[in-house]
Amino acid sequence: MNFLEQLSKQQKEEAERQFKIYANGVHEIIPVIELKQKISQSLAENRPLRIKLRLDPSAPDVHLGHTVVLNKLKQFQENGHTIQLIIGDFTGKIGDPTGKSAARKQLTDEEVKHNAKTYFEQFGKVLDMDKVELHYNSKWLSDLRLEDVIHLSASITVARLIERNDFSERLATGKPVSLHEFFYPLMQGYDSVVLESDVELGGTDQHFNVLMGRHLQEHFGKEKQVVVLLPLLEGLDGVDKMSKSKNNYIGVDEAPNEMYGKTMSIPDELITKYFDLVTDLPLEEKNQIKVELKEGSLHPRDAKMLLAKTIVRIYHGDKASELAEANFKAVFQRGGLPEDIPVFDWKGEKEVPILDFLVDLGLQTSKSEARKMIQNGGVRINEVKVDDIHLQVKAEDEMVIQVGKRKYIKLQIK
Amino acid sequence: MNFLEQLSKQQKEEAERQFKIYANGVHEIIPVIELKQKISQSLAENRPLRIKLRLDPSAPDVHLGHTVVLNKLKQFQENGHTIQLIIGDFTGKIGDPTGKSAARKQLTDEEVKHNAKTYFEQFGKVLDMDKVELHYNSKWLSDLRLEDVIHLSASITVARLIERNDFSERLATGKPVSLHEFFYPLMQGYDSVVLESDVELGGTDQHFNVLMGRHLQEHFGKEKQVVVLLPLLEGLDGVDKMSKSKNNYIGVDEAPNEMYGKTMSIPDELITKYFDLVTDLPLEEKNQIKVELKEGSLHPRDAKMLLAKTIVRIYHGDKASELAEANFKAVFQRGGLPEDIPVFDWKGEKEVPILDFLVDLGLQTSKSEARKMIQNGGVRINEVKVDDIHLQVKAEDEMVIQVGKRKYIKLQIK
Repeated sequence: MNFLEQLSKQQKEEAERQFKIYANGVHEIIPVIELKQKISQSLAENRPLRIKLRLDPSAPDVHLGHTVVLNKLKQFQENGHTIQLIIGDFTGKIGDPTGKSAARKQLTDEEVKHNAKTYFEQFGKVLDMDKVELHYNSKWLSDLRLEDVIHLSASITVARLIERNDFSERLATGKPVSLHEFFYPLMQGYDSVVLESDVELGGTDQHFNVLMGRHLQEHFGKEKQVVVLLPLLEGLDGVDKMSKSKNNYIGVDEAPNEMYGKTMSIPDELITKYFDLVTDLPLEEKNQIKVELKEGSLHPRDAKMLLAKTIVRIYHGDKASELAEANFKAVFQRGGLPEDIPVFDWKGEKEVPILDFLVDLGLQTSKSEARKMIQNGGVRINEVKVDDIHLQVKAEDEMVIQVGKRKYIKLQIK
Repeated sequence: MNFLEQLSKQQKEEAERQFKIYANGVHEIIPVIELKQKISQSLAENRPLRIKLRLDPSAPDVHLGHTVVLNKLKQFQENGHTIQLIIGDFTGKIGDPTGKSAARKQLTDEEVKHNAKTYFEQFGKVLDMDKVELHYNSKWLSDLRLEDVIHLSASITVARLIERNDFSERLATGKPVSLHEFFYPLMQGYDSVVLESDVELGGTDQHFNVLMGRHLQEHFGKEKQVVVLLPLLEGLDGVDKMSKSKNNYIGVDEAPNEMYGKTMSIPDELITKYFDLVTDLPLEEKNQIKVELKEGSLHPRDAKMLLAKTIVRIYHGDKASELAEANFKAVFQRGGLPEDIPVFDWKGEKEVPILDFLVDLGLQTSKSEARKMIQNGGVRINEVKVDDIHLQVKAEDEMVIQVGKRKYIKLQIK
């Protein structure tokens, strides 16, 4: 049925307005036409859409990378739709059936509940958790019998499962793929069948799994969910996906000054992406920033300061964001040194070539990187820029070495 | 533990005697050393081995091809071991979960029971059914939950499943393999885990499935079963596997004369294989026949008559086998015509080329085959051999046409 035709002019405008918000910053909507239909249907029938997000039952320290999807959920929530958070506790309770992965240890009911609570506390900084539905998928998955599993599996071809990137790569290179791994996309998809989700969100790395929900809903004669894929957020280095292991992340629990400073260190080309994906500014304001940056009427540094202030405001409130901004201005814009420079206990030579010095201090990972950094004007000793890559540094107590905008070390020589 | 060392000299001889019987005529034993160990253990501990055979829940008309494995079971049974017949009713009750195969329709409890009864009646001609354990695998498979299935699946790699011949062929040629098909070998293997089978029998086409039992038993920390693979029996044409669809079979329910006559039609090179696989003669006698055939002291025709008489005796008793032999001698060796020649109501031309004639009567499937048959001296009309492939036959009422040793037709012209 074409619900769009049933709408009043005002409702049509509302549908278009919502669609633009949801579509902003996403990687892909599968399919676009059905998302428009769903929004229209929701307005025509005055019923909220069910927006699904699946969470691993392990407890992460939530960082901005995770909030990309939360911010998208928030947009749906702000327009009155229902958020379905699904804790994938079934797989958590099974643990790693091969017994090989220490990381995938079996979780108890208490651990699962505790982790869910951790999610709730951290997600509460973005979403209104009072209006969120929480589901544990063990509720329906632990009741499935072999017969159900076989019926479920009959709808999927092996070729299709193998298409999943990491499966085909591992099979091609002779690395083992255990049969039980084929079940994870199926289980995730079955969650959508049970919960009759209208929309499922996921990162681009979840492409295969969230599409499975659509496939299985169709197999079970239900209306198919729309899939909204969100881009993966690059971390502070501007290269790798934001992650704890790469140490290129901003945690939502980090202190205001840290959060502000880290945000200031992202590459300029990521500014608009960060605005789109990790802030709650209205779409018009985001678009205005993009225009001004492009025209040159907004300086990237100023845009970044607005971004940093906004992020701190989301997680720490207005007051904290203003203080963080003031601190940043005091330290960096007036040229002063920050107050909490880490101290390095220097036990090396008294005189040392600058390239070795930077590597030994851990400020650069290689001499060639150190050379580039000096050539780009990014190295200062006691606030004086270093120009000579052959400089012999005389190490002194209290000497302050600065690399890039935010890395400092103070020598201590005993 | 090396059980062989625990045996008395007499027991060792007994173990060796049993092994020779079981090994005779088989395609492969995996692994041979473990079968010897199992036999020794059985003697040392005075405990029968559990010998498993899995049956499809569909009801077949049992033919000699099926009895290859029954005769092997019988050898184990005669030595006091326990036969475990497993009716695979779980898959039968599920039916075809894709809903595509009319052949794999869902069976009711009544149908499964009825089919099991049919097996029993027909198997009773070979095995002592009073001493056979009957199991329905739905008993344990219908209790398995998703969690169990995942643990089961974790022990198997996808690569290993794909190794199965028909899977790899179908995947390579882009034909769909549905995920649920991966479960069938797992379920069959799990039956061995539950029943703690010592030995599983199967045709060479079951190679993958029966090995899965061994694999899963190991995964569950049980003693691994030995796999005994039996060759597939070629049918009367000596080329294709005996099957109903190829119409090259001898049914165990067929009448004595039919059974005898069909046996006489097998190619000479299959005589010893048939003796090995579908008769119950003692091993020494089978070996004696092989030697005499090789030396030329036993004429293949006489060996085949002994084979035919033995097969009729197994399924119809001594008296019937003697009558069948006498009938055969009367009809074929004295050159007379059999009494029950089928009548063909001829409505074709009065005069017709011999090659077309044979094809029209359904005695040959093509003119080129008819030509070969005439050139080999295999066609007779009214007991006179036809030499001329260009012969114009004048069709007459009561005319008898013979093709090969056993195909006759009598014309009827109204």
